Amino acid sequence: MSNSAWNKLGRYLRETQLIGSIHSTLYWDQNTTMPSSGALWRGEQLSLLARLLHARQSSNEFEELLLAAKEESLTNEPEGEAVEGPFNLEKQRNIELLELDLSRQKKLDSELVVQLACAQAEGYNLWQQAKARNDFPCFAPALKKLIDLRKNQANQLDEDRSCWETLAQPFEPDLTIPRMKELFAPLRRRLPEILDKVKSSKKSYRVDWDLEESAQKSLCEMLLKDWGLDPSNTAVARSPHPFSITLGPEDFRITTRIVSGNPLSCFLATAHEWGHSLYEQGLPSESHHWFAWPLGQATSMGVHESQSLFWENRIARSKAFSEYFWPHFVHAGAPIKSGMELWRAMNPLSPGVNRVEADEVSYGLHILIRSELEILLLEGGMNVDELPDQWNKRYEQLLGVTPDNDSEGCLQDVHWSEGSFGYFPSYLLGHIISSQLTQTMEDQLGSIETKILSGDVSPLLTWLRENVHHYGRKLNAEQLVKRVTGKTLSPASFLTYLEKKVDKLTSGM
Amino acid sequence: MSNSAWNKLGRYLRETQLIGSIHSTLYWDQNTTMPSSGALWRGEQLSLLARLLHARQSSNEFEELLLAAKEESLTNEPEGEAVEGPFNLEKQRNIELLELDLSRQKKLDSELVVQLACAQAEGYNLWQQAKARNDFPCFAPALKKLIDLRKNQANQLDEDRSCWETLAQPFEPDLTIPRMKELFAPLRRRLPEILDKVKSSKKSYRVDWDLEESAQKSLCEMLLKDWGLDPSNTAVARSPHPFSITLGPEDFRITTRIVSGNPLSCFLATAHEWGHSLYEQGLPSESHHWFAWPLGQATSMGVHESQSLFWENRIARSKAFSEYFWPHFVHAGAPIKSGMELWRAMNPLSPGVNRVEADEVSYGLHILIRSELEILLLEGGMNVDELPDQWNKRYEQLLGVTPDNDSEGCLQDVHWSEGSFGYFPSYLLGHIISSQLTQTMEDQLGSIETKILSGDVSPLLTWLRENVHHYGRKLNAEQLVKRVTGKTLSPASFLTYLEKKVDKLTSGM
Repeated sequence: MSNSAWNKLGRYLRETQLIGSIHSTLYWDQNTTMPSSGALWRGEQLSLLARLLHARQSSNEFEELLLAAKEESLTNEPEGEAVEGPFNLEKQRNIELLELDLSRQKKLDSELVVQLACAQAEGYNLWQQAKARNDFPCFAPALKKLIDLRKNQANQLDEDRSCWETLAQPFEPDLTIPRMKELFAPLRRRLPEILDKVKSSKKSYRVDWDLEESAQKSLCEMLLKDWGLDPSNTAVARSPHPFSITLGPEDFRITTRIVSGNPLSCFLATAHEWGHSLYEQGLPSESHHWFAWPLGQATSMGVHESQSLFWENRIARSKAFSEYFWPHFVHAGAPIKSGMELWRAMNPLSPGVNRVEADEVSYGLHILIRSELEILLLEGGMNVDELPDQWNKRYEQLLGVTPDNDSEGCLQDVHWSEGSFGYFPSYLLGHIISSQLTQTMEDQLGSIETKILSGDVSPLLTWLRENVHHYGRKLNAEQLVKRVTGKTLSPASFLTYLEKKVDKLTSGM
Repeated sequence: MSNSAWNKLGRYLRETQLIGSIHSTLYWDQNTTMPSSGALWRGEQLSLLARLLHARQSSNEFEELLLAAKEESLTNEPEGEAVEGPFNLEKQRNIELLELDLSRQKKLDSELVVQLACAQAEGYNLWQQAKARNDFPCFAPALKKLIDLRKNQANQLDEDRSCWETLAQPFEPDLTIPRMKELFAPLRRRLPEILDKVKSSKKSYRVDWDLEESAQKSLCEMLLKDWGLDPSNTAVARSPHPFSITLGPEDFRITTRIVSGNPLSCFLATAHEWGHSLYEQGLPSESHHWFAWPLGQATSMGVHESQSLFWENRIARSKAFSEYFWPHFVHAGAPIKSGMELWRAMNPLSPGVNRVEADEVSYGLHILIRSELEILLLEGGMNVDELPDQWNKRYEQLLGVTPDNDSEGCLQDVHWSEGSFGYFPSYLLGHIISSQLTQTMEDQLGSIETKILSGDVSPLLTWLRENVHHYGRKLNAEQLVKRVTGKTLSPASFLTYLEKKVDKLTSGM
């Protein structure tokens, strides 16, 4: 048994995972603690690990171990179980996913991998300069190069998909452009209409107060304690951009940041990142069993985002939460007089040019614009130089706003500068998935606002653990939603939720 | 040139150093941030890296690169410089040290390396239990095993030295037992006499106040700013035991801790660890040139300790420093009325059973006891079971105190539980080296207390950089002291310094 081909493969994967998690630990340190002068050496450490990792993920040894494990699993000798038993189905799914990952790694020319790594570093560097100086032309050649290299990569991968689809696979397995358009079309139609309703209302609330750093920190600690963070397996730190990361089967980390003048940013980012971490903590990694195997991993960035958005938008931004939690904000120094007031502060509604600061309604429009543009750049023949104009035109058309300059426009996000194409849709898919899952949760558990008001959100977490988290990569995003809700994924729940919320916020009740 | 054998070796060493520094980064995280549940996985990550490191340090590839570089350096073709030029002398020294390290790594049986790693982990674990329960017999078998394995290691290394000396080499290169006894003998005679003088005086000062954590933190920040810490290359954190570590050529870290009831512990630990870091920061690592080479490294633990002790004892514990800095302590809430009072608080004189909390006079006696005992255990035929009695007997004899139990006695230190033998003398050598270097510094710069009183310690640091730090491993500890002070290392300066300080403290001036 312990020397079965399956276990040999497991030991190989485990070592790969150890190296991957070492890489993640260095990334964590880089973003939370490392002094700035350490960057150069850290870069060398990370690229050494990336090289080791790529070598292991594309090695002949790996291929042979995988083949042997597959054969063993088909003949099913060492276990003596029925081939159709659940464990064997899981094995088969693991093998399928490993074969897919291996074939992708092997198809890539190692020279291209190196070129891409350099272009990403250069792109990121130039983007930072361009953004600081509002100088899109300084970044444009690097972006062109990244697009060419990514096209080249998609060619090498040679999948039965379009270029953009191929590049989106690591984030959203099995997603196609037609399916994405089908999901997003109702949003493209309805979101501007909802936004018009918001604009015609005069009920908007502006947060004109701030909170001390120490007070914000205490509020976050209170929230995390309430939501079950266990300090023996999760550490919290600060970083310029909040993130959640898993460094071992029982080692979780999240970060947050204080934004001056925005007293709720840190709190909502904490809720969001904790949602990501709860998903990671609920993945099937018992006894290290799946941690090294594909099934123990998150199934898509959209599903990941659905979990962070659940805790941020459905819980922390709910009216019930504000009713329950507002006295703590008063104690922390917030000049508010009711839960309603906190709720309005948590839910500003005003379309702007910035994605990260966007409200729940306009957020989707930011994504629609980016998704359209990156498809045009990669496979629609659009020239990089047209990007600023195309960007601004769409903002005017969909959101009714125009960026003052490119730094606040098409240079605002980091993703393209690192050559990440195909990532943006995951954010919006997250909203859609989260809403559909929440509707089923409410059908089964009753109103979640009642639970939130009682101060005990553990039944909601239990439901997510039992219905969503434990699948890992056993099901892809759409299969997961179908399994949990009984229905094909659609934006209907999201739109219904938004319309109700906007009604309440604009009517002032 | 770039493909010279020398540069090929350099690239190899650089990659080894990258892996070593990744290991250190994980160690840093483990001790400052990692949640406790992460320990098991972290252990696996660290042992994977240790395996990679050992393989690189003992590989045939390394041996061949080293040989080629040596031959090239002897024929001296690629550089066209005189063989006797300083750069070539440095090359030769680098090669000598690399050959020594390689031969040690190659002589060790890899099975023994694994056995030792397991025995160290087990020893540390049992020591923790034994210490918590005051149960020496629970730890004794693990200690016996560690001693046997270390004896075995010394046998395999087969050097022209005794067992203990062989094991002490990584900490104190070239140290012999006779030389150590020669250096320590005057201390063994004089320290108890100085201690008698202390005991007969009634001038002792007890710290019966404490400071808020935030106040201690502010004082430490003020100290480090004063002493030139640059946050762009050095990060500070908390850990259970203070330490200093270097994670890259321009990435330095130190930690400290708050000890309840001891308001000066954090401050003095900060001064101490910053002293270690200053040495590391002054090593010849310009442009990454030596970071991967032996010459860019610390020459001995004793020299390292001499630098930390300089900043802790000669600066932070000096009367001048208290006169200069005491208003900050008052501002932080300390109920003191003069620099003299702070100085007395910084320098309690009372022999006790604990090494870490020992004053400057009795500290050496703690080390003498440990050094004698570990030599007896390794090569004097002393049985592990005799350790508690032998320990207590010596404490009674040299310090006039007896531990209440073994937890406070022979179980107090972690070193032996991890199989570290030969480390303790470095602490005392550090005091001796520090004093002799300081005397020369004062001969050249004038009284350091005058500089301290003026609030500008930068001339002292400059002197250390120019006279001590930049040598790296070019000279061993004794050669370094001879080079700097013109005299052979001796405990004379240390004893003179102590006698004067005790006179002042006991006379109350």
